[in-house]
Amino acid sequence: RRGEMAKSTQLIDNEVFRAYATYAGIVLIKMMLMSLITAYFRITRKAFVNPEDTESFGKGESAKKYLRTDPDVERARRGHLNDLENIVPFVGIGLLYALSGPELSTALLHFRIFTGARILHTFAYLIPLPQPGRGLSWAVGYSVTFSMAYKVLKTAWLL
Amino acid sequence: RRGEMAKSTQLIDNEVFRAYATYAGIVLIKMMLMSLITAYFRITRKAFVNPEDTESFGKGESAKKYLRTDPDVERARRGHLNDLENIVPFVGIGLLYALSGPELSTALLHFRIFTGARILHTFAYLIPLPQPGRGLSWAVGYSVTFSMAYKVLKTAWLL
Amino acid sequence: RRGEMAKSTQLIDNEVFRAYATYAGIVLIKMMLMSLITAYFRITRKAFVNPEDTESFGKGESAKKYLRTDPDVERARRGHLNDLENIVPFVGIGLLYALSGPELSTALLHFRIFTGARILHTFAYLIPLPQPGRGLSWAVGYSVTFSMAYKVLKTAWLL
Repeated sequence: RRGEMAKSTQLIDNEVFRAYATYAGIVLIKMMLMSLITAYFRITRKAFVNPEDTESFGKGESAKKYLRTDPDVERARRGHLNDLENIVPFVGIGLLYALSGPELSTALLHFRIFTGARILHTFAYLIPLPQPGRGLSWAVGYSVTFSMAYKVLKTAWLL
Repeated sequence: RRGEMAKSTQLIDNEVFRAYATYAGIVLIKMMLMSLITAYFRITRKAFVNPEDTESFGKGESAKKYLRTDPDVERARRGHLNDLENIVPFVGIGLLYALSGPELSTALLHFRIFTGARILHTFAYLIPLPQPGRGLSWAVGYSVTFSMAYKVLKTAWLL
Repeated sequence: RRGEMAKSTQLIDNEVFRAYATYAGIVLIKMMLMSLITAYFRITRKAFVNPEDTESFGKGESAKKYLRTDPDVERARRGHLNDLENIVPFVGIGLLYALSGPELSTALLHFRIFTGARILHTFAYLIPLPQPGRGLSWAVGYSVTFSMAYKVLKTAWLL
């Protein structure tokens, strides 16, 4: 039992892996917070999609009017979907990258730039900032993930 | 070759990791089943989105009428998207959590509650159950993932 | 420090894990390319969803007319969402599968068929090919992921 525990903590003892776990945890939590932002807008704008969600507003027509789309709700949802499209590949490729033996300083550079870019992206989307604010923050995160993918494929390549 | 094989099975020999693999496998399969449920509703309700999917119903107007949305199809699709938003973070954070050296009993508690909550969430969404059934099952799964993220960040923290 | 580095490269030295890293990297990059295809169609078809994205076309009504949906944009977006629904489970289950000690040849068979099927699926969706082209390529990838999940659950099962 002890031996197994020791084995299981090997990875988490590695500094690059610890950095990965920290930043992957931060961006995944950031992504999950989009659910709360969407819920906040749904409740304050009274804009729902499921009939059972409007039942507390009464029955029939009085509740049906809250089954509608709202620009702020849709904006938060698009930000959430963009996170899924970009943060999920980062988490997957980042794990392989962390296991491919990069220098700690290089790895930290990748993780920090990606995390900063995605936090900026969320603000750029929700405020919203004028373009190319959102576009650039998206492109920076996207490029970081490609850079990590290049290192993974160069190290692991076995087709 | 043997040595490598042995190394590769170290993680899967660890009990916490085995529990993680079991529950992550179960919730990912559950998420994938949402595709079949959506396909079932698309076929039985004759509600498609791609013109090439309706060609077996004939050409021209007779097929075009099946390019439409259907409440049951949309409901299954929302359940699927909600799974992506919640099960994917669980799988990512859960992996790091399993590697952060938790007690087996604590880990099992997290994995079991999350898995139960997400299965309930699917039933609550598809039947649908009156609120707050779906909301509560969502919140339980969400909280479990945050609890694991807290343990990961506490153990790994390297910014 | 050296010892830790050595430990961190154990996994990536394993052939099955290297094959997994290669194919997971390829399909994740393929999924990310869907963002570029969507952006390409948004720009060439002038079909945007965020008001701030159309400001370079002028202010007021002249820009507002570009806030619209376009069939090619929507098709690329559906392809991207289908990738999220299928490639993400492959990456998660594939990692556990690679750690469950499969034969290299069996693992390569799974990874190659899945990757080929998903590349075919993208072409079938974007061209589009007549059905059942897209349906079959989807089903092949789906079945490969289930086959890996079965091996993971058989090896790891700890409920």
